[in-house]
Amino acid sequence: MEYICTNYGGLGEKVFHGKLANGLDCIYIPKPGFKRKFAVLATPYGAIHRKATVDGKEFSTPAGIAHFLEHKLFENPKTSIENRFASLGASVNAYTTHTMTAYLFSTAENFYDCLELLLDFVQQPAFTPQGVVSERRIIAQEIKMYQDQPNWAVYLGALAGMYGDHPVSEDIAGKEADLAQIDYELLRKCHELFYNPGRMVLVVAGDIDEKELYGFIAKNQGQKQFPKLPAIKSLVPRPQPGVGECFAAGMEVSRPLFCLGLRDQLARDWQEAGRRETVVSLFLEIFIGKNSPFYNRLYDEGIIDNSFGAEYSCTPWYSHFIFGGETDDPDRLAQELLGELKRLQECGISQQQLDVNLRKLLGLFIMDLNGLESTVMAYATDWLQQGDYLTRFEEMTKLTKKDVEEFLHNLDLGQSCLSVVNPLNQQ
Amino acid sequence: MEYICTNYGGLGEKVFHGKLANGLDCIYIPKPGFKRKFAVLATPYGAIHRKATVDGKEFSTPAGIAHFLEHKLFENPKTSIENRFASLGASVNAYTTHTMTAYLFSTAENFYDCLELLLDFVQQPAFTPQGVVSERRIIAQEIKMYQDQPNWAVYLGALAGMYGDHPVSEDIAGKEADLAQIDYELLRKCHELFYNPGRMVLVVAGDIDEKELYGFIAKNQGQKQFPKLPAIKSLVPRPQPGVGECFAAGMEVSRPLFCLGLRDQLARDWQEAGRRETVVSLFLEIFIGKNSPFYNRLYDEGIIDNSFGAEYSCTPWYSHFIFGGETDDPDRLAQELLGELKRLQECGISQQQLDVNLRKLLGLFIMDLNGLESTVMAYATDWLQQGDYLTRFEEMTKLTKKDVEEFLHNLDLGQSCLSVVNPLNQQ
Repeated sequence: MEYICTNYGGLGEKVFHGKLANGLDCIYIPKPGFKRKFAVLATPYGAIHRKATVDGKEFSTPAGIAHFLEHKLFENPKTSIENRFASLGASVNAYTTHTMTAYLFSTAENFYDCLELLLDFVQQPAFTPQGVVSERRIIAQEIKMYQDQPNWAVYLGALAGMYGDHPVSEDIAGKEADLAQIDYELLRKCHELFYNPGRMVLVVAGDIDEKELYGFIAKNQGQKQFPKLPAIKSLVPRPQPGVGECFAAGMEVSRPLFCLGLRDQLARDWQEAGRRETVVSLFLEIFIGKNSPFYNRLYDEGIIDNSFGAEYSCTPWYSHFIFGGETDDPDRLAQELLGELKRLQECGISQQQLDVNLRKLLGLFIMDLNGLESTVMAYATDWLQQGDYLTRFEEMTKLTKKDVEEFLHNLDLGQSCLSVVNPLNQQ
Repeated sequence: MEYICTNYGGLGEKVFHGKLANGLDCIYIPKPGFKRKFAVLATPYGAIHRKATVDGKEFSTPAGIAHFLEHKLFENPKTSIENRFASLGASVNAYTTHTMTAYLFSTAENFYDCLELLLDFVQQPAFTPQGVVSERRIIAQEIKMYQDQPNWAVYLGALAGMYGDHPVSEDIAGKEADLAQIDYELLRKCHELFYNPGRMVLVVAGDIDEKELYGFIAKNQGQKQFPKLPAIKSLVPRPQPGVGECFAAGMEVSRPLFCLGLRDQLARDWQEAGRRETVVSLFLEIFIGKNSPFYNRLYDEGIIDNSFGAEYSCTPWYSHFIFGGETDDPDRLAQELLGELKRLQECGISQQQLDVNLRKLLGLFIMDLNGLESTVMAYATDWLQQGDYLTRFEEMTKLTKKDVEEFLHNLDLGQSCLSVVNPLNQQ
C-alpha cells in the first residue's frame, strides 16, 4: 500500500499517512528510541450520535448505545479481550466520548500480535444476544456508580444548566431506562454502520519499521469483508439558545464542589472549532494559567486550590468553558471569574502577555509530545474532526493579540450557569 | 534611596534595583496578584571559601565554617529565629552551598515584620561562646546523618573521584575534626568580613509597593553600623588535573545507586561560567531530556527510571556534569552515557533538535517563574556570580547549533569518574 510522509519541521516530528482500499486511514508517528508502542483505533461515533440519516432514511437509537457497543466489543467466547492483551504483555483501554469511540493498547512486546488483536476485536464483534442482556445490568451499575460521584454530578449539573436536555448534557452511558431498548440486532446494525473502516482511523506511535507496519495492516484488512459504506448524515440537534437555572445538590463532600459553565457560540464547522480551541488554549493561559496574576490572587486568597481546572470545548453542536474545583465560596468564585473575563473584554490583553504565554504553551506542547498515549489520542481525535494535531503547533506559533481579543469580543458572559455540590450538613 | 527599573520584555517581567549607602544590593521582583511574598538575603561565602587575603594578609579557616556560621545566626537569647518567624505566620530557611550562604523567608502576612527580622538576625549575630560549643555536637550529628545516606555517599564519591581532596568534594558541613577548630571569635570574625552589606544581596518578590519597600530597607540599614569593607580576595585552590579512581561502597539500598561525574574545563570567570551553564541547559535537553530518543531508549530498556537526573555546574574553580539515579547496571549506564556523548561529539546535533528543545526550554523557563522561591534563589545566586537570572532567558533565545557543538567539542570524555553504592548483599 502507498503512504506519504509529512515533516513537521518546527517540532522535529514526522508522520506517515496511508489510506487502505477499504477506506481506513492509517497514521504512523515514528518515535525513535521508544520501546513502548501505542495504537488507537477510533470512530467518530459517540454519545451525541443518536440520530442519523442512512442513505436518506432516518435511523434513531436510544441514548447510551455507543458506549454500550464499546462494552460489547470486549465480549469474547473464549477469554476476555483484556486477558488476551494481558497475556501478550500489553494493556488495552477504550473510551466513549460525546463525539467518538476509541480503542487503545500499549505494549513493549508482541506489537504485531497486539495490533492484529486490536483490529480484529474492534472490527469483528463476537458478542451474543445473551451477553447483551447481562451487559444491561453491568452498565446500569456503572451509571449508578457515576451518579453517586460528586465530581460527576457537579459537572453534569453545569452541562444540564447550559444545554437542558440536549444529548451533550446526558450521561454518556445513557439512563437505565434507555438500556432496555438496546438489543443485539440494534448493536450489530450500529456496528455495521458506524464502524465501517471508511469512517475510521488507526494511529500508531513507536519505533517501528513503517514498511512492515503498513504491509501488516494492509494484509489484515485485505482478509476482511465490509459492507459498502452508506451515506451517513449525523443528525445532532442544535441546543436551545440561552442557559437554564443554577444547579445545586447536597452530597457527601467535605468542601463545596464548584462548576461554572459558560456557553460560547457554536462553530460553523470542525475547522473553525479546531481553530477556536487553539486560540482558547492560549487565552486560558493568559486568563487563568498558573503564571497569571489572576490565578495567583485567587490561589493566595484561598478561593481556589490545586483542584481548580479550566477547559474549553468547541464543536458544531456545543461549545463552552467549564471551570471547576473545590472552593469554600462558589458564588464568589463565579463572580471573580466572570468579573475578570469582563475586565479582559474591556481592557484587552497586552502583546507581552501574549508573547510570554505563547512561549509557555509552545514549550508545553513539545513536552506533551513525549507522552505517546496522549499524542495518539489527540491525533486520532483531531483527525476524526478533520484536523491535524501537529499542525496545531504551527497555527499556535502564528496566534496574535487580535485573535484572542476577537474571541473575547464574541463571548457572551450572560451565558453562564453555576453548578454546586454542597456538603450535606451545610445545605 | 534611588532605584532603577529594568523591563524584561520577552518575559513580561520587570525588576527594580537599588544600592544602599552601605553597599547592599536590593532587588525587587514585582509579582502582581501574588499574596505570598519571598525575600532572600545572601552572601557569596560558601564551603569552598576557606582561605582569603584580607587587605593583603592571608586568612585561613577550617572546613565547614560557613555552614557553622549559618547555624549560629539562628541562635537567639529569647526565642529561636524559627519560632519568631512562625509566630509571624512565616517560614524561614537557610542554605549553605559551595559558593554562597542564603537566608530565605516566605509569608502571606506581616511582611515588613518578617523583612526586619531577616535583616536583623543575619546582620546582627546574637550567638554566644557557649552556644558555639553546644553547636559542635549538633553539627557532628548532622554530618553523621548525611554520611549514612546512600544518595549523599554516592554523590560525594563522584565529586571525590573528580576532584580528590579539593574543597568542592568535601561535605559542606566539614568533618567532625574541623568543628573543634571553630570557635566564637573566628565565627565573629568571619561574620564581620563576609557578611558585610557591601558584599551581599537582598532579593524580594511579591505584590509590594516598591517605594515603601525601598524606604523600609533604607531605614533599617541606616540604623546599623558596619565596619569598612576590607579588600577580600578569595583564595580557592585550582583542582589538580585528571580524575581519580572509581568509588564503590556497600550500603543499605535495594538497588545500586549510580553517579557518573564528568569534569569540564574551568570557566575563566563567572561570565563565562553563566554562559556555559545556559548552553548546557539546552544541550542536556537535546542529549537526555525526557523528549529525547536516548532518554526514552534507556528508560524503556529499564536501564534508568524516574530517579534519573542530570546536572551541570560551572564555576571558575570546578566544572562538571553529574548523572545520577538508581540502576541495575551502573557500568552499562556509564557506557551508554559516554557512548552517546561521543556520538554527539562526532555527529553533531540537528538544527531541528536545537529549535524544538530550545522552545521547550523557553517554555519551562517561563513556567518556573511562577515559583517565587526558586526565582528569588536563582536571582540571588546569579547576582552574586555577576550574572542576571532574567537576562539568561534572552541569552537562551539566541543560542545556536554552533554554541552547543563548540561546547561538545571542548568536552573531554576521558575526564569521567563512576561512583556506585551497591546493596550490601550484592557486594
